[in-house]
Amino acid sequence: MPIQNDTFLRALRREPTAHTPVWLMRQAGRYLPEYNATRAKAGSFMALAQSPELACEVTLQPLERFPLDAAILFSDILTIPDAMGLGLSFAEGEGPRFARTTADEAAIATLAAPDMGRLRYVFDAVSTIKRALGGRVPLIGFSGSPFTLACYMIEGGGSDDDFASVRRMAAARPDLLQRLVDVNAAAVTAYLNEQIRAGADAVMIFDTWGGLLSSAAYRRFSLASMRAVLQGLAPGPAGRVPSIVFTKGGGAWLDDLAACGADGVGLDWTVDIGEARRRVGARVALQGNLDPLVLTTDPLTVAREAEAILRAAGPAPGHVFNLGHGIVPRTPPENVAALVETVHRVSREARAGQTATAAARGT
Amino acid sequence: MPIQNDTFLRALRREPTAHTPVWLMRQAGRYLPEYNATRAKAGSFMALAQSPELACEVTLQPLERFPLDAAILFSDILTIPDAMGLGLSFAEGEGPRFARTTADEAAIATLAAPDMGRLRYVFDAVSTIKRALGGRVPLIGFSGSPFTLACYMIEGGGSDDDFASVRRMAAARPDLLQRLVDVNAAAVTAYLNEQIRAGADAVMIFDTWGGLLSSAAYRRFSLASMRAVLQGLAPGPAGRVPSIVFTKGGGAWLDDLAACGADGVGLDWTVDIGEARRRVGARVALQGNLDPLVLTTDPLTVAREAEAILRAAGPAPGHVFNLGHGIVPRTPPENVAALVETVHRVSREARAGQTATAAARGT
Repeated sequence: MPIQNDTFLRALRREPTAHTPVWLMRQAGRYLPEYNATRAKAGSFMALAQSPELACEVTLQPLERFPLDAAILFSDILTIPDAMGLGLSFAEGEGPRFARTTADEAAIATLAAPDMGRLRYVFDAVSTIKRALGGRVPLIGFSGSPFTLACYMIEGGGSDDDFASVRRMAAARPDLLQRLVDVNAAAVTAYLNEQIRAGADAVMIFDTWGGLLSSAAYRRFSLASMRAVLQGLAPGPAGRVPSIVFTKGGGAWLDDLAACGADGVGLDWTVDIGEARRRVGARVALQGNLDPLVLTTDPLTVAREAEAILRAAGPAPGHVFNLGHGIVPRTPPENVAALVETVHRVSREARAGQTATAAARGT
Repeated sequence: MPIQNDTFLRALRREPTAHTPVWLMRQAGRYLPEYNATRAKAGSFMALAQSPELACEVTLQPLERFPLDAAILFSDILTIPDAMGLGLSFAEGEGPRFARTTADEAAIATLAAPDMGRLRYVFDAVSTIKRALGGRVPLIGFSGSPFTLACYMIEGGGSDDDFASVRRMAAARPDLLQRLVDVNAAAVTAYLNEQIRAGADAVMIFDTWGGLLSSAAYRRFSLASMRAVLQGLAPGPAGRVPSIVFTKGGGAWLDDLAACGADGVGLDWTVDIGEARRRVGARVALQGNLDPLVLTTDPLTVAREAEAILRAAGPAPGHVFNLGHGIVPRTPPENVAALVETVHRVSREARAGQTATAAARGT
């Protein structure tokens, strides 16, 4: 089925677009009352993620409110370690927790990529959402990065000390961490390929914690494993599927990220997107990078800050507007409306201005 | 009084040294049993910080154990807002807490730099430590950065959401945040000048939270206010006093930091110190940047990782070895001993190798 609004895919390919496409990390989430209603109906977060019908329902909710240029599969980055048998749960009001850690030699030696049959609910969600979208906008599939999955697996959940246990392993037992990310890379590759087979139009790798590593350890344990995943991606039913990598706190490694094989690089809000564009040139699309906290202020502030990012990103093709991290729960939906409206309007006006200038110049 | 081991000061001035000097952020701290004993004697953290004699005692403790090349004043970065009357306290096992926040228009409008007389205990500690050191090594004075102080003042303490309240103010009420950092910059300038007058041989500005800001907000609210402080520093009894700035998470702004007027720039552990040196050339000294978690492993791992940093930093003068953030409490002191020994030995050997090579080449 052809995609009616393919602005997002065109921007990822650095092709000219009529406006700057925009979607938002965690756009289906707790800031939307309708999400909370579906979540309550599901009973638990994992029940919501594991029901293709309910996952489809919440995936489409933000698109009903806002003219976003892409949908993103509703799921969790920890589905893979859960399918490895680590026992994922989410206590109410707390972060993720695994019943078992993967932190010692024995646990890591016996670890294997999971049977993709155990993740069928994810691929079913992808095909359900694709059908429901009816080609309106592209659907983004995603995975946690091999290293970010390793962080949760070693720690047994989230961390309040910047994953000290993981950084210690990177220094003292690099062999163990290497095997862990290698297994994860194989799993992530298979996982994204199944999402592509089910119809995902683009895929994104979320490297939430790579930015905690030293530069040498980042290149060895996070960047290299993401490169391996990208090299292993197969074409989808409609051909090659573009990819985006996002390392939060990875601004210093922008050149490496631009050369790792992805079509687009996500930027967190600390990066100057204008400087980033000057550094990477036309090699990759850039995605980002409004501070999600700006979305908790007011519509005028949102519009002003969004315009500043559009101006900094410049007129070159290849900008996908997004936040620099996920939407926070206390975001008023009207601020999201103001953001999407501003990005579309201001980017259209800028292009019209360029065209007018070019016409006046006779070019 | 002349300083016997001035290696640290020479490295800050990018002069050749016989070895790479090393000191460690939070080198006087909870990983040392003798620190915990003094802390218990004092009764509370603030009582310890406010007693010049006890502050002197803990400042000197790590120097008794390890041949460190500098001492750093034992104090807290929040002494200034405490002197502004905000009521600083440390609950057992928790972070700092202020009785009053400085988050609204009225509180910020009436804020003023404190009378330096209220911080006399800090300056008395400096002169007490200087006397006790007897010129053995230089003494580093320090302050929190104007922006980092603002973070705690707005939040009323530490933050578990990356100072969302501060990032919101930066976007929605930049005028309020500007006034707050301006007042803080005046206070920090006076505070460091009093430390210099009392005998500090170098000063360091800790910008712990600048790295949470967008690039534009960082330049406006953190970098500019540190530049203002540096421009306001007066010479000490023995002449000009060198300075170091450290923005955790500031690797992307290295060029700005190298041009802000400081003699040295601190690097957190995520930065590749070799790339940093190539970017800044001989403009500034670089300080850093071992991941403090490496110090929780074992002496062999510590030695290997320290050597990697020395190698990456290269032979050019102007490297002060340090961690990329403060020592963590569970650090075994024998790992610190291994670190200091390795840095001194390996850097001496490298210089001897260079000299031998130069001699063999007849240069």
